[in-house]
Amino acid sequence: MLKPGDTLGILGGGQLGRMTALAAAQYGLKTHVFCPEADAPAGQVTPLLTYADYHDRDALARFADAVQAVTLEFENVPVETLAFLEQRVPVHPGPRVLAVTQDRLLEKDFITGCGIATAPYRAVDSLSGLQQAVQELGFPAILKTRRMGYDGKGQVTLQTADDVAVAWEKLGGQPCILEGFVGFESEASIIAARNAAGETALFPLTANRHEHHILRESIAPAPVAPDVAGRATAIAQTLTERLQVVGLLAVELFLLPDGQVVVNELAPRPHNSGHWTMDGCATSQFHQLVRAVAGWPLGATDMTAPRVRMRNLLGEDVLHWQDHLADPAARLHLYGKPEVRPGRKLGHVNFY
Amino acid sequence: MLKPGDTLGILGGGQLGRMTALAAAQYGLKTHVFCPEADAPAGQVTPLLTYADYHDRDALARFADAVQAVTLEFENVPVETLAFLEQRVPVHPGPRVLAVTQDRLLEKDFITGCGIATAPYRAVDSLSGLQQAVQELGFPAILKTRRMGYDGKGQVTLQTADDVAVAWEKLGGQPCILEGFVGFESEASIIAARNAAGETALFPLTANRHEHHILRESIAPAPVAPDVAGRATAIAQTLTERLQVVGLLAVELFLLPDGQVVVNELAPRPHNSGHWTMDGCATSQFHQLVRAVAGWPLGATDMTAPRVRMRNLLGEDVLHWQDHLADPAARLHLYGKPEVRPGRKLGHVNFY
Repeated sequence: MLKPGDTLGILGGGQLGRMTALAAAQYGLKTHVFCPEADAPAGQVTPLLTYADYHDRDALARFADAVQAVTLEFENVPVETLAFLEQRVPVHPGPRVLAVTQDRLLEKDFITGCGIATAPYRAVDSLSGLQQAVQELGFPAILKTRRMGYDGKGQVTLQTADDVAVAWEKLGGQPCILEGFVGFESEASIIAARNAAGETALFPLTANRHEHHILRESIAPAPVAPDVAGRATAIAQTLTERLQVVGLLAVELFLLPDGQVVVNELAPRPHNSGHWTMDGCATSQFHQLVRAVAGWPLGATDMTAPRVRMRNLLGEDVLHWQDHLADPAARLHLYGKPEVRPGRKLGHVNFY
Repeated sequence: MLKPGDTLGILGGGQLGRMTALAAAQYGLKTHVFCPEADAPAGQVTPLLTYADYHDRDALARFADAVQAVTLEFENVPVETLAFLEQRVPVHPGPRVLAVTQDRLLEKDFITGCGIATAPYRAVDSLSGLQQAVQELGFPAILKTRRMGYDGKGQVTLQTADDVAVAWEKLGGQPCILEGFVGFESEASIIAARNAAGETALFPLTANRHEHHILRESIAPAPVAPDVAGRATAIAQTLTERLQVVGLLAVELFLLPDGQVVVNELAPRPHNSGHWTMDGCATSQFHQLVRAVAGWPLGATDMTAPRVRMRNLLGEDVLHWQDHLADPAARLHLYGKPEVRPGRKLGHVNFY
């Protein structure tokens, strides 16, 4: 169990790591950020930084010696990195969790193995395998790389037979899965926390709207029927317990017109759709992650406002930061990223 | 005006600087802490640190070059330090404000010059002067050094004529003031903010309870009659405007049984009695300070809970940190100070 004054190691230096470090500081913890990118957002909020490759074992060993626990903000940290660290220091979530959630095929096998619905899917390892899978699942369908996909990267939509070979070519012939069409009405997510003692706590269901595969807005609580929220909550509870994750598990969901709830994907880390908790919940997702990883009791997840809307500041959105500062109903959060690029997540605003 | 990505310099490395830096980070600002003490709480939350004496002009010049604005968390930064920095970079609050608030005599002269009541007082520069002052103000009275007093340091209570020479001896013969007795019913404070454009915003009046001259608990809003709160607010508004402070002005008050409000002292910085705003106000005092110093619009100061109680964790109180983590009505804040000493401010808890 961590004590105030201990140091929490964070793998990954992006905004999720930055906000985790700020939450840890409230509890009197130091943080040590390990990431391969110089000038990372998380590196602006702690003097303890290691800029090194995730495969640099000397750097990892020194990092492990300098911290009392490790968590991550980037789900594609190599599993071997976590396994190496875990021999030296507690790592939450650990390599077994990441091995599942880094691979879309293993992840979907895990979810369906829990008796929970996903989009129909097939493993695809060749063009002929893709053609077979398309025959079984029909059009439209989405070809996705098994590994390293996020924000719409590593995926191609197939509308007709003409798209099949092109899609296979485009994703470079690496191991993929084909996902069948899910006629969802809306998207939602739910973030669960679990500590090493097995205590769990779930945040309220959140409605999400994406644009160009990037989260645009979240609204909590999701405006859905109570039985839908109940099904989503039960799914997140089951997945969290079965995966035995220590830390957070963000569960992305499709909500179908008939009230069915289907899991889209999992992320064992803080999630963009949970940023509203920073201004609308008794405990933010970042504070909750720190508590879970530290081995502390989890915090209450009651909302502190009747409704919160989170809007991402993408690319040039951030140029209007002053408008949000002047709006008494807005809470502005900026990530310290110097470069404005289209679609880049540079901040968010929570609105009451 | 500061822009996200700019660096805010903070003079002083204690918990007030730490919490200011955490607030600045939310707005995408970097912070650079300048303080004479190694291992300072604020030094744990930024990679930009200068450990140097406040009289080290080379270090100050480099610091000024590295930041776009300077504020302070320690009101006894030498006025010459601020004047030196102010030639190079905007400094808020500036040396003219500090020159007044660092000196109990100048401060009381300023307050009474605004037509606002303080305890009766006399300047004291000699033992014979002290004897004369005691004759005028009567017993009990408090002898205080004009400079460098806080948390009960630099003051001696005089109950009888026997105490006079002893008190003068004890305070080392330095310039003092003698304050007459104020039969107050309770203590309170109000924190005001003002930006360079002259915009002001006041936090709700807060009731304070001290033990051994150290703040023990604060409650907001202070449970007082509306006309008392109104008088306190008018006093803080007047002092803030007349002092032309840019940043925060904490006004400590005595509330008398007849409803009269008397100013005890001023602090042009975040104040312990404002820590409840971190969990009970639309804008915390630290966010407000950043906004004021950055030249941004001030934030709303509406309460977000009907009532908040702040309790300091002093000395061994901090050993019970786990109890507060497990209490859903508590919000724990720890300052990263390694050493537990009696009476030392190591954290605080906000209770709903």
